[in-house]
Amino acid sequence: MAPRTKILSLLLLLNFYVAAAQFFINYAATDSCQRPTEYYNFANLRCDTCTGADSQTSTGGDVGGWLGMCVVWHRDIAGPGYWQVYPLSCWADCRCVRCHQSFIDVSGSCTCPDPNQVHGGICFTDAQIGVSQNLDFTWDSDTKLSYYIEEYLLAASLGCTPATGATDAQRNLTACQLLGNLCVLRLYNRQNDGTNQEDGCTLLQALSDDNNDNVGTVQDWKVAMPWLYYNHLLNDVSEILSDTEITTKFTFTAASQSSKLDLVVAAYSLNGDFLGIQDVTGGLLQLCKDSNTRLDAAYVFGTTYSQRCQLNVQDFWNNTAYQQMVFYDMCILHQYYRYPDDSTLYAIPVRITNVAYSDTDNSGSDRTKWQLVRRFFLVDPIGAKLAADGDPQVVRYASSFSISVQLQSGNREGEIYPPLVTITYSEASLDDFNANAKVTVTFSVSYEMSTATYEQDVQIAIGVLSALAILWALFVSTSSWRRRIGAQMVDCTSLLKFIVYMFGPLGNAFFLVAMGAALSWLLFFKRQDQVYLLLPTPAQEETFIIYLSVACALKCLEMLHFLFTQMTIDIFFIDWERPRGKTADVEGGNGKSQSVSMWRTYFVANEWNEIQTTRKSNTVFQLFAVLLFMNVVGFENLTTTDPRAYLVINSEQYVGGYSKLLRFGMMSTVYLVVAIVQWLFFTFFYERFVEDKLGQFVDLCSMANVSVFIMANTHFGYYIHGRSVHGQADTGIQEMYEMLVREEENRCGQRGLLANTDNQTFEMSLPHKLRDQYDSIIKPLQQQAAAARGQNRQRAGGGNTTSAGVDINQQVDAYKKLNKYLAAFIDRSRPDIDYIVKDKMFLERLLDMEFLEATDTKGHFYNDDGHSFDAVLFYGNELVLLTFELVVFSVVDLIGQSYVLDAVITYLVSRFVSNLRDSGGRKNLAKKTLVDERFLI
Amino acid sequence: MAPRTKILSLLLLLNFYVAAAQFFINYAATDSCQRPTEYYNFANLRCDTCTGADSQTSTGGDVGGWLGMCVVWHRDIAGPGYWQVYPLSCWADCRCVRCHQSFIDVSGSCTCPDPNQVHGGICFTDAQIGVSQNLDFTWDSDTKLSYYIEEYLLAASLGCTPATGATDAQRNLTACQLLGNLCVLRLYNRQNDGTNQEDGCTLLQALSDDNNDNVGTVQDWKVAMPWLYYNHLLNDVSEILSDTEITTKFTFTAASQSSKLDLVVAAYSLNGDFLGIQDVTGGLLQLCKDSNTRLDAAYVFGTTYSQRCQLNVQDFWNNTAYQQMVFYDMCILHQYYRYPDDSTLYAIPVRITNVAYSDTDNSGSDRTKWQLVRRFFLVDPIGAKLAADGDPQVVRYASSFSISVQLQSGNREGEIYPPLVTITYSEASLDDFNANAKVTVTFSVSYEMSTATYEQDVQIAIGVLSALAILWALFVSTSSWRRRIGAQMVDCTSLLKFIVYMFGPLGNAFFLVAMGAALSWLLFFKRQDQVYLLLPTPAQEETFIIYLSVACALKCLEMLHFLFTQMTIDIFFIDWERPRGKTADVEGGNGKSQSVSMWRTYFVANEWNEIQTTRKSNTVFQLFAVLLFMNVVGFENLTTTDPRAYLVINSEQYVGGYSKLLRFGMMSTVYLVVAIVQWLFFTFFYERFVEDKLGQFVDLCSMANVSVFIMANTHFGYYIHGRSVHGQADTGIQEMYEMLVREEENRCGQRGLLANTDNQTFEMSLPHKLRDQYDSIIKPLQQQAAAARGQNRQRAGGGNTTSAGVDINQQVDAYKKLNKYLAAFIDRSRPDIDYIVKDKMFLERLLDMEFLEATDTKGHFYNDDGHSFDAVLFYGNELVLLTFELVVFSVVDLIGQSYVLDAVITYLVSRFVSNLRDSGGRKNLAKKTLVDERFLI
Repeated sequence: MAPRTKILSLLLLLNFYVAAAQFFINYAATDSCQRPTEYYNFANLRCDTCTGADSQTSTGGDVGGWLGMCVVWHRDIAGPGYWQVYPLSCWADCRCVRCHQSFIDVSGSCTCPDPNQVHGGICFTDAQIGVSQNLDFTWDSDTKLSYYIEEYLLAASLGCTPATGATDAQRNLTACQLLGNLCVLRLYNRQNDGTNQEDGCTLLQALSDDNNDNVGTVQDWKVAMPWLYYNHLLNDVSEILSDTEITTKFTFTAASQSSKLDLVVAAYSLNGDFLGIQDVTGGLLQLCKDSNTRLDAAYVFGTTYSQRCQLNVQDFWNNTAYQQMVFYDMCILHQYYRYPDDSTLYAIPVRITNVAYSDTDNSGSDRTKWQLVRRFFLVDPIGAKLAADGDPQVVRYASSFSISVQLQSGNREGEIYPPLVTITYSEASLDDFNANAKVTVTFSVSYEMSTATYEQDVQIAIGVLSALAILWALFVSTSSWRRRIGAQMVDCTSLLKFIVYMFGPLGNAFFLVAMGAALSWLLFFKRQDQVYLLLPTPAQEETFIIYLSVACALKCLEMLHFLFTQMTIDIFFIDWERPRGKTADVEGGNGKSQSVSMWRTYFVANEWNEIQTTRKSNTVFQLFAVLLFMNVVGFENLTTTDPRAYLVINSEQYVGGYSKLLRFGMMSTVYLVVAIVQWLFFTFFYERFVEDKLGQFVDLCSMANVSVFIMANTHFGYYIHGRSVHGQADTGIQEMYEMLVREEENRCGQRGLLANTDNQTFEMSLPHKLRDQYDSIIKPLQQQAAAARGQNRQRAGGGNTTSAGVDINQQVDAYKKLNKYLAAFIDRSRPDIDYIVKDKMFLERLLDMEFLEATDTKGHFYNDDGHSFDAVLFYGNELVLLTFELVVFSVVDLIGQSYVLDAVITYLVSRFVSNLRDSGGRKNLAKKTLVDERFLI
Repeated sequence: MAPRTKILSLLLLLNFYVAAAQFFINYAATDSCQRPTEYYNFANLRCDTCTGADSQTSTGGDVGGWLGMCVVWHRDIAGPGYWQVYPLSCWADCRCVRCHQSFIDVSGSCTCPDPNQVHGGICFTDAQIGVSQNLDFTWDSDTKLSYYIEEYLLAASLGCTPATGATDAQRNLTACQLLGNLCVLRLYNRQNDGTNQEDGCTLLQALSDDNNDNVGTVQDWKVAMPWLYYNHLLNDVSEILSDTEITTKFTFTAASQSSKLDLVVAAYSLNGDFLGIQDVTGGLLQLCKDSNTRLDAAYVFGTTYSQRCQLNVQDFWNNTAYQQMVFYDMCILHQYYRYPDDSTLYAIPVRITNVAYSDTDNSGSDRTKWQLVRRFFLVDPIGAKLAADGDPQVVRYASSFSISVQLQSGNREGEIYPPLVTITYSEASLDDFNANAKVTVTFSVSYEMSTATYEQDVQIAIGVLSALAILWALFVSTSSWRRRIGAQMVDCTSLLKFIVYMFGPLGNAFFLVAMGAALSWLLFFKRQDQVYLLLPTPAQEETFIIYLSVACALKCLEMLHFLFTQMTIDIFFIDWERPRGKTADVEGGNGKSQSVSMWRTYFVANEWNEIQTTRKSNTVFQLFAVLLFMNVVGFENLTTTDPRAYLVINSEQYVGGYSKLLRFGMMSTVYLVVAIVQWLFFTFFYERFVEDKLGQFVDLCSMANVSVFIMANTHFGYYIHGRSVHGQADTGIQEMYEMLVREEENRCGQRGLLANTDNQTFEMSLPHKLRDQYDSIIKPLQQQAAAARGQNRQRAGGGNTTSAGVDINQQVDAYKKLNKYLAAFIDRSRPDIDYIVKDKMFLERLLDMEFLEATDTKGHFYNDDGHSFDAVLFYGNELVLLTFELVVFSVVDLIGQSYVLDAVITYLVSRFVSNLRDSGGRKNLAKKTLVDERFLI
């Protein structure tokens, strides 16, 4: 920054602080000028005292001298309190028309004889007309001549110039307003084509510059003149917009006055007459018509309001409502806390995006190039008229009108910065008129607050939770996994596994933070009294959307890893049944060693296959319940952008759109609550009193005399002890009945692995030698199968091989060997390997980890709660599945904003995951247990 | 009917036909009176020719004689073309006030000296005031004196009376209108308290009776006077409302003028000034404000429109919009087909429900007591004023305003009877004002047509289909059932069964008819061009609701019967495995006969248990798909009561409520289409390429060497032949592998029941002896079980009995006996019973019936398509389940009108049915097959 600019900035800063309170307008009501020597100065919205000649005439008295004219005492239309004598000419149709002083000056009557000329109702002398050579009568930069500007520019300019010797205040108020309006008609665009021609804007600016009498502290507002430009802050728009002088504390309490954005406008007709200070309610500024309730909702504080409709272009030409142009200066009504009756106005700046001249460009986002202004109109059907009674060639209309309100940051709850009005004008041409075109106009009110502190909080939360997640993944998940696979060194696999283990916790962290933010917004936004929290704008919502998307991506990766892990476990069914000796063949012949029937194993495998995707919660019920609460009960209606919080929406009222953030907050809460209720129901009622699938499976194992040996990791797994207490299970109907009865009546031993215990299920930390042995039996088969898959591409079927292409005898041998080996291990009949049964410590349980490592020859069996093996099924991983579905639901809602769509997609995804697990699990089961897939139905 | 009344009716009838076209008004536009001698007679909406003195003054000329007054040529405000000379007194404030002729008559100037008196701006002479002794100035029957009526009644009455010698037409038009308005202020209630006092109504009636000059053919409308009452049809309201003279053919084509209900009103101010003929669009008659698009939707033909809002009572007092009372005479713009430019008006009658005097009572439904009228207002804040500048004590407002349109029946497509406006006025008192009360006002437009012919059609359809359903139930279902149970006589059970069999087809018939009606309405209502079909009114919809409810009740009964039937079938698993001789016990000991292992039977029973509730369609997918189409895609938006048919609703537009009929039509169509797509997908893709549960089950039976013998009825059932082609199945892993490979390579026999066939599944018509034998084995067990259930209440457990309380040995004996007996039957190794395998004839298949009856000793096995046994599962009864769910969905929608709710309830019902079937089926299976429930998991 150059030194010169620095000093300039410093000066500006000083200037700013001095001028901080400058935008307040100490206005007076039009009927408050009660003293006989007062009149209402509508240019400055205050009561002024009559000075000099004015006060003289106001006394009335002699009205002679106006020969040939109808003369009456006439009350000035601008308001009571100020009386003037006007000459009147009474026409044949009895409309009394007042003629202008200039006529009387020139001719002494209501005529304007040659060479004097009438323009804008004023009789100009020859000398005055000479000035007009220098005037610019164009309506826009395309040099369209405007009848109205041509007619009135000179008159307005002369009327607004004080007579020689008069004070700065002694101007024709109406003429000054008219001159200002002629500038606004051109959309503030000052002539700069080098011809030195003067338009309304430059004329008014010159008159303002000559006027040294400011209104209050506003340097841009000169007494008796309109305030159009924000000039004296040299365009430092940011400081205008960050003024903190508005101390109204806005609330959401519907009954309170401060729950409304109390906007008013000083309205002027095109010719400069003052139309009063008007409330903006009732659709004053809204081109789209609607019921008053819905129109006025725009000004309920905190309501993100958006209105859009199509208008017939022809109405701009034909509808009388548009023909009377009105110009507005907008202010916000400001109440002091200490003196609530003593209200004042605060000027609201307007940014017209069409303003563009020399260095000024309001269309972009570069605030240093903005030119803020005060006055605006809605529809201009007059500026582009070529003749008094002609049709306008073009009609300019406010196609987009938006008010943006920014809440102050810090602890100034409920206080706002100055609102900014942004208007974009569009033009409808005669072609549009002839084509009977329709144009879209929008009106919106948006609220914004700096979410910097919230974002910081969120980022801290993300940081902390992510760190915890990473630590968990590193020191618990990965470490536990490394112990279970018996890893000695930190290698590439460990690193990869560590990354993979991060997905889940990290995804949960992101999701939790997003949900926490959304939930707090939901709770605090709708329930606040003094407003301190506004909904984030779409741009601000992006952070939240990113977090949720990241959570979704991470959870999807976690799900892939989860499915892969579950679909690749090692499992084997140990059949304890001993062959019942040699058969004396009934057909008569040589006895042979009878093999043990496979059907019990098939049965158990079939059941295992079925419980693979059994869930603790019913996804369909979950989705339907969420839909029911959101759509039918109407929780959805609590997620609108307006501050109202009702389950039932009244069709009379304006309803804001849905907020993505609030939708997510509401939906995820309902989703989790339903999930918790389902879990409670399932755990404390269904599983106990209706059906316990896992218990049934364990029972079945016992009945079938089959144990399940599961290796989830290389040296870690789960064991279901299914050895029959009756010694054998492969029996006929009578024996089966007898066994059932015997067990019902406790006339046999207990089912536990250890004598006199009931505990049938264990976690196992396996001796390393067992794994080596297992691999040495299984590996050759798998290699053979892999090789066969390669060959199968050339030739199909044939040979004494299984469908996987492995030689049957080899497979049967392997099966028998494995069965014998594992049975011996469980039976403790092998000298080389052994195990100890013990309880897990609390911390071990908590971290899902074993502190004692198994050795080469010695393993540990840990007693469990009866269903630890559900860790390799869906059953024990409900949280992973549920959160995954919730994240999918949430992300689909971000895109589609329809709970039905969310539910459908989530259902399909859930079904897909479940089917994938089902078929993958079946294939794995067939491969590992050597049970043909045809029995897994 | 008394003879006298008869004659009267006849006369009225004649009168009616003569006067048929009387309600047309050949109106002229206000600017159409172009000839210099014409003036606009706004009382009769036509151009009249100036007569006598009128035409004299209209030539202008000498205006002398009006001394002391300002005199100008003045254009009459009623319209161009008629000029009059008025005296003017010019006041100091330059408002020129015209003084009434009566002043000039009395005083020759604008004064009214004593004893003359000014009332309503007219100077009355002493004689004239004498009449006023007899006048009633009350505003309503509670004798509230009204300032306005008191001020103007006499003036209006005198003004409306033609001067002596003047024609009937020579009256003060404005005065007559005012007199009429004073009658309307009293809500037409004629004074009848016996005091002989005259109010506006009686005065106007008397003047009308004296006036012999009708306007056109309207006998109630006298020239130069307003038309208030429909009198001359002697209140035969039905004939007024069934007039067929409106020949406009209304359409739903949005672009066409005839798609609008083209209502106009002749508007009059309270003092009788004519305000022009105004279009009702733009919310002229709607007290609730809204956007023009939504307001004007009220007049789109066929749109059932309903608007409701709350108004602040204080507005009636304060809001200037209500202070100018306007009176309306409503007409419909009528275009002749042949001369579209030559439009005319048709008067629309108004029924004000508050009208009640002597025999007249508009509030009830008795049309003979109705008094139809012409003129109405919306808000009356003037009538109850006690003084000119006082506040009204009570404000009367139209709290309910409805227009009902009835479509003509027969082949007059798109033509309507005269619309009827029904208004109910309510009153807001000063108390309400002080309490700042809110009042609800409604505005509605409803359309109606006689649905008599449609109802007749529907009834015929119901009749025919019901007859067919009953015939089917009698001659097919019941008859087939009787053959299958081998019934000989028609007994009570047969009758009961016949009734039960009627439920389903009858329910289907009702549902089909309801759906057909709804669907045709949906198709034709939204797509019609010339309007011939309107939505039924809620009352007319009742028939449809009844049909649907009946269908639902019948389908529920059918479902109960269906479940009961499925849960009580007889089933037995035949084990073909032979014991493998005596075991040489490995433990060393005496050999014993080895029993056949039960595990294969358990496996098969378990699988059977699982396929019991397998469905061909996925209910959840079905429901979600329907939700998706209705809610997300937006088919729901096609079911609104307006004629628009767009999937996406524009929020700018008025959206009618949902029509129950259309909702049902749309929803059931989508439901069925989705179901058909699911069925196609399942049958042609899923079952063939993914998974065929029934085929897998049959395969399993073959592998397990177990046949399934199902008796659905006493002598009818299904058989799955599961005899292993390998002779034995209870083998070890190696043999199993070998068998699988052998079969894959076709190295063994075929699985069919007959040699060299593949057919494993059959329908069976059983020899009666077999059933007797079966019963003799099973019955004792069941009796014992029933007895044990009684005993169990006293003692629990103990003894060598099963959980059902049956002695084990007896049960095992029964099982073995049955197995042997049935195996022998299938094997044809019993001499006493036998069967023939044959194909079913086409007609037999179609009717699900056997023409040949089984004899005592001989049965028939019918080859089937591989899954005939699905008839005793959900699998083969998809249609029953699907239609049941559809009916539930539909009926819930009638109540809740929310597809989400429908889906949730349907899902719960479907789950309940499925769970019921599941647990009931399991219990039945355990009971009949002697497989313990613990193996059915």
